Amino acid sequence: MTVRRRPGRRPGAADTRGEILSAARKVFAEKGFDRATVRGIAREAQVDPALVHHYFATKEGMFVAAMRLPLTPDDVVPTLLDGPHEEIGERLVRLILGVTSSPETREPMVALLRSAVTHEHAVAMVREFFMNAVLFRVADGVGVPHLRVEAAFAQMLGVVMARYVLKMEPLASADVEELVALLAPTIQRYLTPETGQ
Amino acid sequence: MTVRRRPGRRPGAADTRGEILSAARKVFAEKGFDRATVRGIAREAQVDPALVHHYFATKEGMFVAAMRLPLTPDDVVPTLLDGPHEEIGERLVRLILGVTSSPETREPMVALLRSAVTHEHAVAMVREFFMNAVLFRVADGVGVPHLRVEAAFAQMLGVVMARYVLKMEPLASADVEELVALLAPTIQRYLTPETGQ
Repeated sequence: MTVRRRPGRRPGAADTRGEILSAARKVFAEKGFDRATVRGIAREAQVDPALVHHYFATKEGMFVAAMRLPLTPDDVVPTLLDGPHEEIGERLVRLILGVTSSPETREPMVALLRSAVTHEHAVAMVREFFMNAVLFRVADGVGVPHLRVEAAFAQMLGVVMARYVLKMEPLASADVEELVALLAPTIQRYLTPETGQ
Repeated sequence: MTVRRRPGRRPGAADTRGEILSAARKVFAEKGFDRATVRGIAREAQVDPALVHHYFATKEGMFVAAMRLPLTPDDVVPTLLDGPHEEIGERLVRLILGVTSSPETREPMVALLRSAVTHEHAVAMVREFFMNAVLFRVADGVGVPHLRVEAAFAQMLGVVMARYVLKMEPLASADVEELVALLAPTIQRYLTPETGQ
């Protein structure tokens, strides 16, 4: 495996991973999630594609690392799909509230949303990542139309924004059990085929 | 009524209203909606408070004009509260989808949300306006806890963001009737006392 470096840099792999992630952020922002490729990111980082594969098994994994997200789709999707279907609403609400409860895991997610709201070029990246890596896998796993899983996403996106960005009381201080009781039936209905229409 | 103007400006009321709105944007952003006063905005605009009252009957009206919002709380709240309670969810969904369907009326609302997401100092202004001028009046009108109306707000905030900012398909192109069927039962449940828990 050949590691080519930019001229004038000292050789050595100390920050190669960091450089790949930096290149990944640039390429994802420019091309969106779907059109970004491992090869293109390797080219931007001036390293061999095999080295990118060595650090990151998948494009999803690279995106998660580049955006410092606390969860990968490969954690999220099975967490939602495994277990009794009649509790999927509760599992989703607990997962989102759990991940967003501490600032260290919440901030990268809020930063990603903020970038989509403020930078037109980040919109495609955020949209495509959520849709293809998470939402559509859940929709197809439970057998509901994509629109329904987007309605569930919208509910939780709005809750995270109202609770942590707008800091609306009493929502901002409400405890998890109260929010589960309020929100889980909504998510359950959206993620259940042929009901509630 | 005395109109004092900044030194060096030509006298004349041609843009007095515009100057008041400009001062209002500054004061609302600095102090939030609750702590901003007509007197403080008049001072910032260097005009007599009576002149501010002449142009804008209420602080809510001044906020709506300053942010170029397409609806005032005095339009929204009665629209929701009047009419059969069992259709309040549908009325809210139709109202929000109607206002956001054309770019001219949508953009000022998205701009307001964008400012809250990106400018820490705009958060209090946006939060307090929505809570005190709209949400709590609706909650108190229908007799549900404030938390429930914030859950409804969160659902519609997320839908507006996913549909118009993130542009997620199929949500972005879904027709109003399909979204009413999907979302109205959620809003109806949140805005109905003592149900669905």
